[in-house]
Amino acid sequence: MAVDELDRLREEARGLAVEMVRLLASRRAVVSRIAELKRSSGLAVIQPGIESVLRMAMVEEASRHGLPAETVHRLASVILSDSVTTQERKTGQQLTHMDILRRAVEMQRNGREVQRLEVGEPDLGAPQEVRKAVSEAVLNGFARYVESRGLPELRAAIAEHVHERFNTEVRPENILVTPGGRFAIFLSMKTLLSPGDELLVIDPSWPMYKQCADFVGARAVPVKTSLEDGWTPKLDEVEERISSATKAIILNYPNNPTGKMLSRKYFKQLVELARDRNITLISDEVYADYTRGEHVTVLGEDLKYVLIQSFSKSYGMTGYRAGYIVADEAHVSKMASILGLIMTCVPEFVQHGAMRALTLRETPKQYADIMMRRMDAAVRELEKIGAEFYRPDGGMYVFPKVGIREADGMKFALDLLESKGVAVAPGSIFGGYDQFIRISLGAPEESIVKGIRLLGEYLREKGLA
Amino acid sequence: MAVDELDRLREEARGLAVEMVRLLASRRAVVSRIAELKRSSGLAVIQPGIESVLRMAMVEEASRHGLPAETVHRLASVILSDSVTTQERKTGQQLTHMDILRRAVEMQRNGREVQRLEVGEPDLGAPQEVRKAVSEAVLNGFARYVESRGLPELRAAIAEHVHERFNTEVRPENILVTPGGRFAIFLSMKTLLSPGDELLVIDPSWPMYKQCADFVGARAVPVKTSLEDGWTPKLDEVEERISSATKAIILNYPNNPTGKMLSRKYFKQLVELARDRNITLISDEVYADYTRGEHVTVLGEDLKYVLIQSFSKSYGMTGYRAGYIVADEAHVSKMASILGLIMTCVPEFVQHGAMRALTLRETPKQYADIMMRRMDAAVRELEKIGAEFYRPDGGMYVFPKVGIREADGMKFALDLLESKGVAVAPGSIFGGYDQFIRISLGAPEESIVKGIRLLGEYLREKGLA
Repeated sequence: MAVDELDRLREEARGLAVEMVRLLASRRAVVSRIAELKRSSGLAVIQPGIESVLRMAMVEEASRHGLPAETVHRLASVILSDSVTTQERKTGQQLTHMDILRRAVEMQRNGREVQRLEVGEPDLGAPQEVRKAVSEAVLNGFARYVESRGLPELRAAIAEHVHERFNTEVRPENILVTPGGRFAIFLSMKTLLSPGDELLVIDPSWPMYKQCADFVGARAVPVKTSLEDGWTPKLDEVEERISSATKAIILNYPNNPTGKMLSRKYFKQLVELARDRNITLISDEVYADYTRGEHVTVLGEDLKYVLIQSFSKSYGMTGYRAGYIVADEAHVSKMASILGLIMTCVPEFVQHGAMRALTLRETPKQYADIMMRRMDAAVRELEKIGAEFYRPDGGMYVFPKVGIREADGMKFALDLLESKGVAVAPGSIFGGYDQFIRISLGAPEESIVKGIRLLGEYLREKGLA
Repeated sequence: MAVDELDRLREEARGLAVEMVRLLASRRAVVSRIAELKRSSGLAVIQPGIESVLRMAMVEEASRHGLPAETVHRLASVILSDSVTTQERKTGQQLTHMDILRRAVEMQRNGREVQRLEVGEPDLGAPQEVRKAVSEAVLNGFARYVESRGLPELRAAIAEHVHERFNTEVRPENILVTPGGRFAIFLSMKTLLSPGDELLVIDPSWPMYKQCADFVGARAVPVKTSLEDGWTPKLDEVEERISSATKAIILNYPNNPTGKMLSRKYFKQLVELARDRNITLISDEVYADYTRGEHVTVLGEDLKYVLIQSFSKSYGMTGYRAGYIVADEAHVSKMASILGLIMTCVPEFVQHGAMRALTLRETPKQYADIMMRRMDAAVRELEKIGAEFYRPDGGMYVFPKVGIREADGMKFALDLLESKGVAVAPGSIFGGYDQFIRISLGAPEESIVKGIRLLGEYLREKGLA
């Protein structure tokens, strides 16, 4: 009896699923027609406003039937990503930032002198004290599986450091030790964004943010800023870009690539906006120590946030892969269990190095001084060649406009490299800023000066300056 | 004109999406009734056969309308996971393996003697040569960002090692250096399994496999094996569990927790089955060196595979977080870009340590000797207390049946710990083997002997032996 009824119900359930497939196919046909119309009228494929309307309509229908929001959001993602695939025409293999790097290395191997201003890594190296601490820890066998969230001693030391440096009380329970800043960003996005959710990104931005959002199945929604506005995002534009699917916004000040630092007043307005809309703020502050002025931090703000920090810049520990997160305790636990699942823990001896680093009060200042001296030199040289740029408040990059006319920044960067031996990161990779290039201060001062002079030569020869 | 038409089409597309939500809600109601019926008749929530029928019906409908297979699989996942949530009743907070570990540490802190036979970490430590190599590399500043796939020298050394050890030709292009075996498993699952795809897992199994499958949104489908069958999976059962959504099967021999090693003949049959069904084989061979007999490897087999290896067991480098993958070149590139995205690279100095390790031909043999001596002791003691178990062919665990009558292995393990000071991993966590416990050989021999004797005492007192 029960078995017959079960079979009947199963068939009904199956029928409904098949009917959904049929509807999706019908929808696809409609979307194809939309795409055709768009092509002839020149409209963009992704229009965030339109998607929000669709999502809202779906959520409304779902709530009428008691369907959970999570399920309907997942369904919406399937439907929306099918639309985008339908509408997008495959573009050819694109050149990336890595092509510049690879070509620069290749040229150096062939004996060419290259000014390596494309790298995102300071050349400072870790202080001897840190190296010694790691070395001793390794020799003494500090290489066992340890707690996923990090050694209790290190978390306590970070909590104290944060207190001292940013005047904010945090507890060791709020700290998660990560294998570098990238991993910290991955963990925060993975836990905050479900497939189909949206992340606001202020452009120009470090490409990793969008790539990582994409990796976790979320969609990065850009808010454009401009040199003319001093790279300050407009509050009403940020607000406009928020949809029902927006779960987080990522900020990165001092900024890569512009060197912009937000004022405290403006930062507070962003915080308020995020809080009002129940959006988590991911604040990537890895360049906090590379600044002249006051660093404005998310720490202590009254909203849900994730602070991203790293030992790479402040202590020159790039290849050690050590960073940390400050977030609320429950969120830290969630991220710690992912870290534990996919890599157990950060190597114990690396954590010993991080612990030693935190005792070095002068190192971040010394390293910042070096960067600021290079910054001054870069600014001076850029002014000489007449480039337009925002004078950085901090960070380790300058982002001048080079005024190229053709719309392909990558081609410009490759040509500059081939003809003058100057490697830079093309502005195109930071969100389509083809007329800009990013000059890194990770190289020695003389290399920066020489590189910018050669850039000036190149621009004059091409009639661009 | 075009704008009006666009608006009309958009409304149509939106209407179809909303209609899909309505159907999903109807389906949910039907599934609830199925769940009620099941509860009264005692059937399981997940019945893979039924799901395959549903998927096939959906794929068939999709192909009729030219909808891509990927889209319909994603839609099926949304529908199926909604069904499972509907049917599952929330269970209370469950005890985990970590509770045993935590309690054991706590008892030790309070001065109790505890035999730590629950750990999955050998106590051997890395050889002095490896420690020195890492120490020197750190002191000399080998801590820069390096290639995501690993140092060319290390990949060349691994390729050579693999050739020598397993008599299989692989190229450095087939190698990816990872921060440990867990990360290697994560990368392989992340790249092989899309949400909704299925992974076959042979139970009892290391819990990480299912957790990781779940983490990437895939579904782990267990194939049960039994002590009576010598933990050999039945080929027809493996075949039965394969559905149109099965993309990979994960094997782990020598096995954690049983110590089972498959015969070459049987392994070949599994390989053939996987190849015929176009399923990728993930072979976790991290215990390859802990064996007496011949190790049967996937290397050199003619199918799509991913080999998982680690420096943790063969060289005692647990906390260094160093492992590697062998796979086809295109797949390695894909995994390398994920590794690069979320953590740049494995620390350069750790890779120097791995390089030094590979020059130590005797270390893996010495470490294996220690493990095999402990294994003999464990087997002897288990025989004395009359436990039933499979005599391990390799690995670092024994998995005896302790014949508890109640169906809660976790409670048994906790009670054994509290009353006798013996920490073991309950069989329940390896796929519901409540009548078994896993004894680790990661502890010194006297601790293993003492622990098993105390276990014998406990079983006698409880009338279980």
